[in-house]
Amino acid sequence: MNYYSDSINQLIEEMSALPGIGPKSAQRLAFHILEMPKERAERLSKSILDAKSKIRLCKECFNLSDSEVCPICADTKRDHKIIMVVEEPSDLVAYEKTGQYEGVYHVLHGAVNPMIGVQPENLKLKELLVRLTKEDVTEVIVATNSTVEGEATALWISKYVKQAGIKVTRIASGVPVGGALEYVDEMTLYRALEGRTEL
Amino acid sequence: MNYYSDSINQLIEEMSALPGIGPKSAQRLAFHILEMPKERAERLSKSILDAKSKIRLCKECFNLSDSEVCPICADTKRDHKIIMVVEEPSDLVAYEKTGQYEGVYHVLHGAVNPMIGVQPENLKLKELLVRLTKEDVTEVIVATNSTVEGEATALWISKYVKQAGIKVTRIASGVPVGGALEYVDEMTLYRALEGRTEL
Repeated sequence: MNYYSDSINQLIEEMSALPGIGPKSAQRLAFHILEMPKERAERLSKSILDAKSKIRLCKECFNLSDSEVCPICADTKRDHKIIMVVEEPSDLVAYEKTGQYEGVYHVLHGAVNPMIGVQPENLKLKELLVRLTKEDVTEVIVATNSTVEGEATALWISKYVKQAGIKVTRIASGVPVGGALEYVDEMTLYRALEGRTEL
Repeated sequence: MNYYSDSINQLIEEMSALPGIGPKSAQRLAFHILEMPKERAERLSKSILDAKSKIRLCKECFNLSDSEVCPICADTKRDHKIIMVVEEPSDLVAYEKTGQYEGVYHVLHGAVNPMIGVQPENLKLKELLVRLTKEDVTEVIVATNSTVEGEATALWISKYVKQAGIKVTRIASGVPVGGALEYVDEMTLYRALEGRTEL
């Protein structure tokens, strides 16, 4: 049985296809949109189309950008000799928010995952190697996720970057700041021990 | 500091204005939309505009509808002598999902709430009273929420419906089905006791 009009159904369906939005939330969002002033709904609708049509990938680092080269790559004050490799644009943003990193980035747009058919050639890995030959790079920091896929990708990168004679480092694994040891999993504790530094 | 391009910022801002979507979720949704195939993003954008432009209020019961009279009011198999009064269209849907109600509805679009300036005249209450004079109604079931505002609205309705000489009932308050007594608040337990029925 259908409780809604077609256009409400359509809206609920589109909403519930978004990540983290279940049928209940989709219904709530749809009703909220229907109660919105018309201009706000139009702005929401337009912002989706705008983002979609204006955003492309930076030709240097493959970050999302509305210009050919993203603001980070265009910034001459940043250290272009250090490249941090991340899986997704949101990882880049996470590191930018620390305000502590002054190098540039390279966004892979995923991690190697044969289970769902993501091979190295589906990622921006070849483009990374090309960058290393063209630019004067002294260090590649691998900041892929600490997952099986992220680690596999890190291994792949380290192999080829080392072959190019460039230093390659991996961000540290360990106990999160503010984390209580008793709630941290064994693998993380082991990594934290392995990666211990002298005080 | 701005980590995103303008059009991504705009999209994140519009998304985070939706109910239940915090800044983190808004960012995730925005990135998801950017990764979507173009057609899907266009469909999502269009569904917002469509719902907004096609949906109006049923002239009988003020449910959301894409025709002048909603499918429930247009259904001659339903009992038009019984009107259930609900606060929002989503409440109507909740009752429709039970499949147990055969009457029609009246959607108030809110509840009396002087704190935020919602007075009886801001709701579809006058329209309810007009319906009662024009239609042959034998019972009004008040299914507003079990909140202070919902109860105040229920009182208002019962006063005027009784004056019109029509039977007015209130849905039962009590322990939710499957609920364990120890987790139920005192007010609900009191109501459940008050509303006890003979076995």
